[in-house]
Amino acid sequence: MVVILKKDANKERVDALLETLKGFGVDLNYSEGKEITVVGLVGDTSKVDIDTLKANDIIEDIKRISEPYKAANRRFHPDDTIVKVNDNVKIGEGFFNVIAGPCSVESEEQLNSIAKDVKQSGATLLRGGAFKPRTSPYSFQGLENEGLRLLLEAKRVTGLPIVTEIMSETQIKDFDDVDIIQVGARNMQNFRLLKALGETKKPILLKRGLSATIEEFLMSAEYILAGGNPNVILCERGIRTFETIIRNNLDISAIPLLKRQSHLPVIVDPSHAAGIYWMVEPLSRAAIATGADGLIIEVHNNPKEALCDGAQSLTPSAFDTLMQSVKKRVAFEGKTL
Amino acid sequence: MVVILKKDANKERVDALLETLKGFGVDLNYSEGKEITVVGLVGDTSKVDIDTLKANDIIEDIKRISEPYKAANRRFHPDDTIVKVNDNVKIGEGFFNVIAGPCSVESEEQLNSIAKDVKQSGATLLRGGAFKPRTSPYSFQGLENEGLRLLLEAKRVTGLPIVTEIMSETQIKDFDDVDIIQVGARNMQNFRLLKALGETKKPILLKRGLSATIEEFLMSAEYILAGGNPNVILCERGIRTFETIIRNNLDISAIPLLKRQSHLPVIVDPSHAAGIYWMVEPLSRAAIATGADGLIIEVHNNPKEALCDGAQSLTPSAFDTLMQSVKKRVAFEGKTL
Amino acid sequence: MVVILKKDANKERVDALLETLKGFGVDLNYSEGKEITVVGLVGDTSKVDIDTLKANDIIEDIKRISEPYKAANRRFHPDDTIVKVNDNVKIGEGFFNVIAGPCSVESEEQLNSIAKDVKQSGATLLRGGAFKPRTSPYSFQGLENEGLRLLLEAKRVTGLPIVTEIMSETQIKDFDDVDIIQVGARNMQNFRLLKALGETKKPILLKRGLSATIEEFLMSAEYILAGGNPNVILCERGIRTFETIIRNNLDISAIPLLKRQSHLPVIVDPSHAAGIYWMVEPLSRAAIATGADGLIIEVHNNPKEALCDGAQSLTPSAFDTLMQSVKKRVAFEGKTL
Amino acid sequence: MVVILKKDANKERVDALLETLKGFGVDLNYSEGKEITVVGLVGDTSKVDIDTLKANDIIEDIKRISEPYKAANRRFHPDDTIVKVNDNVKIGEGFFNVIAGPCSVESEEQLNSIAKDVKQSGATLLRGGAFKPRTSPYSFQGLENEGLRLLLEAKRVTGLPIVTEIMSETQIKDFDDVDIIQVGARNMQNFRLLKALGETKKPILLKRGLSATIEEFLMSAEYILAGGNPNVILCERGIRTFETIIRNNLDISAIPLLKRQSHLPVIVDPSHAAGIYWMVEPLSRAAIATGADGLIIEVHNNPKEALCDGAQSLTPSAFDTLMQSVKKRVAFEGKTL
Repeated sequence: MVVILKKDANKERVDALLETLKGFGVDLNYSEGKEITVVGLVGDTSKVDIDTLKANDIIEDIKRISEPYKAANRRFHPDDTIVKVNDNVKIGEGFFNVIAGPCSVESEEQLNSIAKDVKQSGATLLRGGAFKPRTSPYSFQGLENEGLRLLLEAKRVTGLPIVTEIMSETQIKDFDDVDIIQVGARNMQNFRLLKALGETKKPILLKRGLSATIEEFLMSAEYILAGGNPNVILCERGIRTFETIIRNNLDISAIPLLKRQSHLPVIVDPSHAAGIYWMVEPLSRAAIATGADGLIIEVHNNPKEALCDGAQSLTPSAFDTLMQSVKKRVAFEGKTL
Repeated sequence: MVVILKKDANKERVDALLETLKGFGVDLNYSEGKEITVVGLVGDTSKVDIDTLKANDIIEDIKRISEPYKAANRRFHPDDTIVKVNDNVKIGEGFFNVIAGPCSVESEEQLNSIAKDVKQSGATLLRGGAFKPRTSPYSFQGLENEGLRLLLEAKRVTGLPIVTEIMSETQIKDFDDVDIIQVGARNMQNFRLLKALGETKKPILLKRGLSATIEEFLMSAEYILAGGNPNVILCERGIRTFETIIRNNLDISAIPLLKRQSHLPVIVDPSHAAGIYWMVEPLSRAAIATGADGLIIEVHNNPKEALCDGAQSLTPSAFDTLMQSVKKRVAFEGKTL
Repeated sequence: MVVILKKDANKERVDALLETLKGFGVDLNYSEGKEITVVGLVGDTSKVDIDTLKANDIIEDIKRISEPYKAANRRFHPDDTIVKVNDNVKIGEGFFNVIAGPCSVESEEQLNSIAKDVKQSGATLLRGGAFKPRTSPYSFQGLENEGLRLLLEAKRVTGLPIVTEIMSETQIKDFDDVDIIQVGARNMQNFRLLKALGETKKPILLKRGLSATIEEFLMSAEYILAGGNPNVILCERGIRTFETIIRNNLDISAIPLLKRQSHLPVIVDPSHAAGIYWMVEPLSRAAIATGADGLIIEVHNNPKEALCDGAQSLTPSAFDTLMQSVKKRVAFEGKTL
Repeated sequence: MVVILKKDANKERVDALLETLKGFGVDLNYSEGKEITVVGLVGDTSKVDIDTLKANDIIEDIKRISEPYKAANRRFHPDDTIVKVNDNVKIGEGFFNVIAGPCSVESEEQLNSIAKDVKQSGATLLRGGAFKPRTSPYSFQGLENEGLRLLLEAKRVTGLPIVTEIMSETQIKDFDDVDIIQVGARNMQNFRLLKALGETKKPILLKRGLSATIEEFLMSAEYILAGGNPNVILCERGIRTFETIIRNNLDISAIPLLKRQSHLPVIVDPSHAAGIYWMVEPLSRAAIATGADGLIIEVHNNPKEALCDGAQSLTPSAFDTLMQSVKKRVAFEGKTL
């Protein structure tokens, strides 16, 4: 970190600042020039709070050189993290996974039927919402614990590990048998939840917030990692922009950026991104081509009557067609599906 | 709500759709034209899920006419809501309140000193963070329950009602003596928390998410109101845009928009918006001029050593100067401070 | 400007870089530390191209300290610029102007009627579009030179100086008798046009682009100033965000920011910002309260039949009501209208 | 288009509105219901100005069904447009082109050297800036007409058709021998320029504005097409968002959207999008995978000393490596490079 001092800053105040900086446990590299005086902070600067320092009016500006995250940072963890699920599923560089299933769990029949179909087409994990974060209090909120039970039943029937979304740290015990716990975009900065998940060893699928920067996204992963849980999977799902004909814009740049700055697996949600079923395929192709480690895709056996997000779901048959393309492309990239 | 059908839509499928629509409990107004066929939905459409309907490929488009929120909607509640705090403080149209205090509660001495100062200058409520939602797990997270205790002590000393942020629905009992519970921007769509707060009668200060639309913001208020708690205060605190020299852009348009579409009080946070102390005054002036019902302002007795957000805090003396201007302007608008 | 070098950068390459930097005509302040080496650039850094430097892989990062604009910069021009129009109208700090008139000039009768009305209500300049930048090639494009002629006629009749938009540098001669030449938001970075306007002495009303940063906006002003024309008036007119219920979000922060960083007058366009007539008044109030030097407002005698942008126009009677409020508020701020 | 009337709208005013609507040359489909009255507009609605209609206070809302562009619309032109350049280069569906070259033309030696290198690696067209739109008036503005001459010389030497940016409609005659005229992102809504280009038959490479919606982008293409020039190539180059670690976010969704809504070729600029050289390859892969018809890539023989945008340029050797990957991927997609 480099702190640039204002010209003609009062000597005593500068000395006081240097003492404060030392208090963060870093070494200082002070260089006074005629016009520009800079202080380099050497060592672990993750505890230095830039916002607070900026209040000091002898400081002209502050420039972070190293990122504020450590556990999530590839600088300190050059090897790719491979998250293992139930011993037989690996998520991370070199392995490609497809998580598929309905937006909401609606009934045993619906879920088992979709689960069998997506497994048949090549999906490696089953997704389904039991607890649904809905913008409106009047929308269907999920089958809740009954939905969880149905997911576990579908797992028993198909052998597919299950992925489902948690809403609050109070539910962690109920999610004991869930294979991957999903943190939704709206909860990406629910720090209580992140801390609680950091105390488990569960694989966590962390979705990027709608307008979270790459740095904020990795800082949320850092919360889980810093708590002692190394099993974090990042999920890019589209960002909010000015465009109105699609729901969100898949941020394809995020994939190479996250892969470069972090060692964590990155998967892509092409269903929620645009919110339009026919965009799922081209966005999936983009994700595979840029190095994503997997896809999470909504499949519903009757999208027109789905209790949520029908517009973006594929039928099992459309999903099967998609998987033909996905398999060829994953093979082209030299990865294992 | 108006549903526009595709030209040449299959008759049977149209009939099935009409049945589905009737199932939402609305009356239908069907009009078939040579080129354009539209179905008007009359009645309470808040249960109709547009995303699901859009999956039906005989539908060209859907246009909501009435807003998806009811309890928060001025159409159904033309009178302004006045939220009463402790019998003697009123928040809402005609009354102007200033909530002031430190970003974080740091010590009894710090808090009591600031509390006395801001009361002296004219603040009507005291704010202070006991639980802090920080982007980094390595930043100071607040004094937690000890911070709550100090806030209650400062209330006892000064008589100012207190406002402080909650992080999770598990804390509600701990917040029993807090006068106004704040929901932070990052938790605006923490629906578990909103539902739990809806079951209390506590005044809730609901901050707008960084990239929440006006509609989403009011839908979050709707969660609390629909649960039975009418005491919601909306807080505009800046939105995320492409600009980089300030932290966020105060959305001044939100004030007249929220006032027109809703009956709830609207206050403005000029400290968090820009994140720069010298912007607090001009943004406060804008808020007063456009009809806001109050301000929430960070004041710290030593911003340079604040444990968070020093860059945006005012000293007690700068706050006192600000209040001179605020008082004159509130009087000019014909409101009571 | 501070250039931060990578650790272990090759000595020869560092020397070559220092030579390159000297070539920009700046003095260097080189400080080598164990971990962090920085080079301070002292003097006029406006010619240093950061993007090009960043290609040099021995550079870790570059931080600009001083802004890249000079002529527009308050650091070098502490006094407020007052732009004089026709000797009797002054635009800038302390003086408040209201520019009013129709979006498009449609007929002599229409224009003269509106011109008389707005003058009567207190407008100090007349606006009207002769050449209209329309998103669609099929929309009305303005009366063009006939529109210019009608504007000059309205000026003769009412004595109000006129403001109208230019589309291309080829039109400058046709705008000889126009008092203030407006550059539209879409042309904010039409650098040919800006350069040509820099060679005149005409007052220029420069509108901010829909997603232009404050720095880009001031750099466009710099083009005109650097060409030798000091008469630039900045106009904030709303920025593009994710919100959809209004057209654009008036960036109220821009007013204090532009006033602090630049010495140029700043006016606000509340009509185009939200694009809704009833938002004109609250946004005007915000503009006055934050220190704007004026307003530019659309007035049409029959908004429902206006050939463009009817939704945001006021009737002459609504404008008259608005002006009652504006006059009181301008007086409250101690300015002259 | 569907116009939704307000409940209880005055009968005479409704009749007047219907007359106005008929005046646009459309047929009306009027349906009065108890609560909702809608008017369907049948026929060519491209001349109907929604903004103006919205000023009519008996209108609740207006919903466009068909897009406002016609000549650019695939509904009316189902076959893909193939733009022919110099008889031997075809741009459009099925053909893949790579346009490569320096940001700025700097010297004959530089340009010819790069031109030979990129041709050798497989580029099919040569790009190079003679006139540069620079944010700062103090940055290098291009060699101007001398740059054009050098481009034509490089074309003579290598046989590669040339692509270069125009700044103003006054230059069209100087661009007579240029093969493809580029309109930069900042000029996407320079309507004078678009109209003038519509009167030529030159292939036009139209870059999307930094915050232009898909609809606005196609409306700008419409200006050129409506003028009689069918040779428009669309170019996605990244959009402005809240993210700060890259310059812009490549909008990958734009490729399938533009391909579906329009028949025009779509190429992608991965160099300007992120503004970082190592992002060029992953973004190129995404572009190929989602159906783009080509790439435009910056190559410089000495990026560290480039006079502009060095940070995003590839060396000829890095470009050669990229082209190995591009060729394999284009073949995988079944296209011809």
